Amino acid sequence: MKQTADLIVSGKYVLPDPDQNSLIDNGAVAITGDSIIEIDKKETILDKYNTRQHIHTEHGLIMPGLINTHTHAAMSCFRGLADDLPLMTWLEEHIFPVETRWTPEMVYQSTLLSLAEMIKSGSTSFCDMYLFSKEVARATEESGMRAWIGEVLYDFPSPCYGELNNGFLYIHELFAHYRNHPLISITAAPHAVYTCSPELLTRLGQVAQDYDSLYVTHLSENHAEVKTCKARYNSSPVEHLDNLGLLGPKTLAAHCVVLDDSEIEILAERQVKVSHCPESNMKLASGTAPIVSMLAAGVTVSIGTDGAASNNDVDMFGEMNTVSNIHKVAGMDPTAMSASQTLHAATLGGAKSLHASGQTGSLEVGKKADMIVLNMNQPHLTPLYNIPSHLVYAARGADVIHSIINGTVVMEARKLRTLDEDRILAQMRELGQKLSKYRKD
Amino acid sequence: MKQTADLIVSGKYVLPDPDQNSLIDNGAVAITGDSIIEIDKKETILDKYNTRQHIHTEHGLIMPGLINTHTHAAMSCFRGLADDLPLMTWLEEHIFPVETRWTPEMVYQSTLLSLAEMIKSGSTSFCDMYLFSKEVARATEESGMRAWIGEVLYDFPSPCYGELNNGFLYIHELFAHYRNHPLISITAAPHAVYTCSPELLTRLGQVAQDYDSLYVTHLSENHAEVKTCKARYNSSPVEHLDNLGLLGPKTLAAHCVVLDDSEIEILAERQVKVSHCPESNMKLASGTAPIVSMLAAGVTVSIGTDGAASNNDVDMFGEMNTVSNIHKVAGMDPTAMSASQTLHAATLGGAKSLHASGQTGSLEVGKKADMIVLNMNQPHLTPLYNIPSHLVYAARGADVIHSIINGTVVMEARKLRTLDEDRILAQMRELGQKLSKYRKD
Repeated sequence: MKQTADLIVSGKYVLPDPDQNSLIDNGAVAITGDSIIEIDKKETILDKYNTRQHIHTEHGLIMPGLINTHTHAAMSCFRGLADDLPLMTWLEEHIFPVETRWTPEMVYQSTLLSLAEMIKSGSTSFCDMYLFSKEVARATEESGMRAWIGEVLYDFPSPCYGELNNGFLYIHELFAHYRNHPLISITAAPHAVYTCSPELLTRLGQVAQDYDSLYVTHLSENHAEVKTCKARYNSSPVEHLDNLGLLGPKTLAAHCVVLDDSEIEILAERQVKVSHCPESNMKLASGTAPIVSMLAAGVTVSIGTDGAASNNDVDMFGEMNTVSNIHKVAGMDPTAMSASQTLHAATLGGAKSLHASGQTGSLEVGKKADMIVLNMNQPHLTPLYNIPSHLVYAARGADVIHSIINGTVVMEARKLRTLDEDRILAQMRELGQKLSKYRKD
Repeated sequence: MKQTADLIVSGKYVLPDPDQNSLIDNGAVAITGDSIIEIDKKETILDKYNTRQHIHTEHGLIMPGLINTHTHAAMSCFRGLADDLPLMTWLEEHIFPVETRWTPEMVYQSTLLSLAEMIKSGSTSFCDMYLFSKEVARATEESGMRAWIGEVLYDFPSPCYGELNNGFLYIHELFAHYRNHPLISITAAPHAVYTCSPELLTRLGQVAQDYDSLYVTHLSENHAEVKTCKARYNSSPVEHLDNLGLLGPKTLAAHCVVLDDSEIEILAERQVKVSHCPESNMKLASGTAPIVSMLAAGVTVSIGTDGAASNNDVDMFGEMNTVSNIHKVAGMDPTAMSASQTLHAATLGGAKSLHASGQTGSLEVGKKADMIVLNMNQPHLTPLYNIPSHLVYAARGADVIHSIINGTVVMEARKLRTLDEDRILAQMRELGQKLSKYRKD
């Protein structure tokens, strides 16, 4: 007798993990509740299961959803507000004056915009750190995305919680509210070594330990940060965090651009996870993270877009293309950072960085059903010899047509199912007009 | 009394040239025959003209079509055949064995694929150099794209024309056939200094002079080329061509990665035009062309995607993003290569490089009607503060919904009007299966 699935997703190809050898031609994935119950040839799955819903895409590629391990979703409303400027001019004359006018509602709306963009470009999970993160979490809950969310703490008063002590209250409330949430995990998120005192960094380390959460921070993003840190503490940012005992397997460090070999060794030894954000690092002229050396040293590397203010998008397909290309030219080695390595970083590497490889990052029986379907019947994806190559070097976010997260269809035929895209766009056009008046000029 | 236009294209924005200050809100472009007859506010245009066809896009941005100044369209069928390999392994074990099996029909079909991809990602003009270029031109004529096409000549026998002397016959026929063609211009196209003898380079220089055509070649693409050239001629590729008297205003040099300051001076002095192809240069680990220095020296810079085998796409929007980002990080200067500069290179810079700025590259009364319309009503393009920023840092080829070339609608609502996309894709899938059997392994 036939078993019953809630949803069957089928197509021309199923790529369960970043390796081309895992490819199933004419494959299907059977889903019950939030989980994958079987992956096989389409005919085998359809013989075995009745299903409540069947999404078939003739030229479709079914693959794990991408995992964006570093973003500031709410910064989508700053995209294009100011570009091509020195970092401090950009921050002080354009971003900060607007950020002081932030309201919770603005953060909520701007996060919704990023969520829409992330889903429409193939991400199913993301890790966020920003202000007013209760609003970030509220928007994320509506979207159905899987997320790791942290309220950024630093030494100075925040537009969100005011004085630092209130910040701790704020994050305790967040941890309490999202305890055991199926999709949302809260993180401890000190901004960076140059904006957080050793006491604050340590206190948040304790919070992470108490809640068994990730400890997410910016680390060694640029030369100015390293210089400041060395002047203040006589040690590099990596050494500084290590001296404080804050580097460990649950530390997720974004950027890691300015590192020497001994620091890479420390990151590897402590099993720190790295979120690589090359487009932001390029646009802000921060440098190129030594990712090839980190991988060789055994560091788990994942990929982040950073916020849309410094990228200027949250499209992980575009980011993968940049990841593979930048390390080839940086090391003058065309074999560096192969398509499979990059695809791994954007999927399983992301899941490992978030300590969620038992849940997501590949299609596997028992894992959560986080997957996307791409339409491969397009000029830029035809003919097809090797799928990881196409995904990294040719595909773009717009090629994603369906998205399923935790067993729920969040996008079908590019129509968002959990979010009201038209309303979000209309609201953001209004908010954009308001924000452009807040700029210094 | 009202005048009559053949076509009116209107939308939320018209950006006639790469400068944000040129923006017209709620604008329209009136077209008669192949040319733009008026650009103004939509209401003004509609008051003044009756029209046979009106394409209005509520959230549309109307802008000049992009100009891809270096590609090998027919190489689309090699996309993803082999990647992440040392250059010689890639060429000798994967590309060359397949290229020897080339037939005219394969080139024709593969070119059609690239044409479909180019139109669907916003290019309206391109400059191509490859083998069997009569087939390239035949496909291009069908598509309605504007193109500069050259048959690549080199010292050894060609799969297309056989012995070198036949190559000259071949290109004379091409020049004769496309004389006074409204869309297709033929170029003289020596492959490179390391594959062409001084005699061949010079003889093609004479051909270019006789036909008053562009002289298009690869130049200083990587260190190996420079080394070979210096060993053989005791001069760099730039010096070598200059010694032969082959650098001039109608020389279009692709790549120009490995240049010193004196060579940049030579290029500027001779008014050589440069086609910058950063994604290919990154992927093949060739290096980063000193574009910022070239612009400072007054060199006209345009952008090319190179062939899909080494990019792996022909999407000029993705390429623009890379152009702006790579020079910021290469020079550790976030103000380098602004969005407007990059957009200029992809439009007017391209037109100037092809000696066609009287025809295309901006929307101007009297110029040919080469324009694209983007749908700006999308999460990654909302809100909108500065259009060049969005076009360079956030937009992608898939955002282009309509394309008009020489007054003809070649794509409407992403449906190709001049090419049969389904047929092309089906043929290319077949060809791909054939080609994958030709590989050495």
